[in-house]
Amino acid sequence: MRAVVVLSGGLDSACAAAMLRGKELYGITFSYGQKGSREVPAARRMAKKLGMAGHKVADIGFMKSLYGSSNALTGGGVGVPGTFDYSIVVPARNAVFLSIAAAWAFSIGAGLVAYGAHSGDRPYPDCRPSFARRFGAALNAAESDGVRDGLRRRIEVWSPYMDGITKEELLRRGARRLGDAVFGTWSCYRGGRLHCGRCESCANRRGAFEAAGIRDRTRYAA
Amino acid sequence: MRAVVVLSGGLDSACAAAMLRGKELYGITFSYGQKGSREVPAARRMAKKLGMAGHKVADIGFMKSLYGSSNALTGGGVGVPGTFDYSIVVPARNAVFLSIAAAWAFSIGAGLVAYGAHSGDRPYPDCRPSFARRFGAALNAAESDGVRDGLRRRIEVWSPYMDGITKEELLRRGARRLGDAVFGTWSCYRGGRLHCGRCESCANRRGAFEAAGIRDRTRYAA
Repeated sequence: MRAVVVLSGGLDSACAAAMLRGKELYGITFSYGQKGSREVPAARRMAKKLGMAGHKVADIGFMKSLYGSSNALTGGGVGVPGTFDYSIVVPARNAVFLSIAAAWAFSIGAGLVAYGAHSGDRPYPDCRPSFARRFGAALNAAESDGVRDGLRRRIEVWSPYMDGITKEELLRRGARRLGDAVFGTWSCYRGGRLHCGRCESCANRRGAFEAAGIRDRTRYAA
Repeated sequence: MRAVVVLSGGLDSACAAAMLRGKELYGITFSYGQKGSREVPAARRMAKKLGMAGHKVADIGFMKSLYGSSNALTGGGVGVPGTFDYSIVVPARNAVFLSIAAAWAFSIGAGLVAYGAHSGDRPYPDCRPSFARRFGAALNAAESDGVRDGLRRRIEVWSPYMDGITKEELLRRGARRLGDAVFGTWSCYRGGRLHCGRCESCANRRGAFEAAGIRDRTRYAA
């Protein structure tokens, strides 16, 4: 069975993809003007490591102009906050990612569209199972006429969160399959040479390795 | 009230936008590698004509690679069919467009996201009111935490189809407000200097003017 996986280059999506081993995987990575541009090469490495049947990088740089300068992830004028803040939430980001991933899934007859949300992502509404279920149903409504070219036209949207999986449990499962490649993922919201070690995403990464009981070999600037 | 309108450059979306006069309009046009590249300049003209507060052209050219070559609208190897055919349906296209439009709407506090579907679009599942309602509900679930920066975080997805409006009625209403500017829209699936006059979209255009009792001043090649 084919599955399209939204692969950010970060820890969560890599581990979610690793959980799908056995399926024919197609990764899609979005480049949308984020400061952490080290994510895209990390996603490419991960796609290779997981033996994906296909991997595409979709340039949605125009999204930056839609969000304006008050958004810390894409704007130039605002610092990256150290803890959860609405300024790090890009509105409806996963809706955009999942729609595009679903368009690809419908085209290649994939029955699953996966993204790396886990139960720690609760503050982000578009990570929650309730959103994923509704969005999946709506996407299927977009294609309700069924089969074309003998391909299946129904998808399921899935994330580890839908199985109640925490970030540390996700990491544990992912690391078991990825080995040291798990350290090749990129989590930092900043675009430095090393992980900054201080932004919310780096803090979550550190905490997850600690909670999972895995020695963190990531190199942090601080 | 602010509204984001998906503006293709064609007849339907221009007339749908014209129906929203009185609202503060923001147009978004998608450039996705379609052969009918005359659509984008037509959309720009229409945004100006309607006095839109903003207009953006979003380059989603990567979509072409997701759909592959069997799709007549974006692929090089297949002709454009003269009547309705699944090869002219880009999977989940409106899901992608509406997600991106909604991301913009959430960012600027617009309460409405509009696209130009009408009751004649019934063969396309992602034009139907049932899809639009479900998709709107799912998009709101993506932002269920409510207000940010004092902006409203709830949108309604609307199309003329949701009010049971036919293509000719839509055209009648649009032409009343647009005057001769309605002939500046671009419908043809082919990329010629003039409308080809023969593809499905040209045939629909001609039929709509005839049914609406409006003399069609569009210049057709055939």
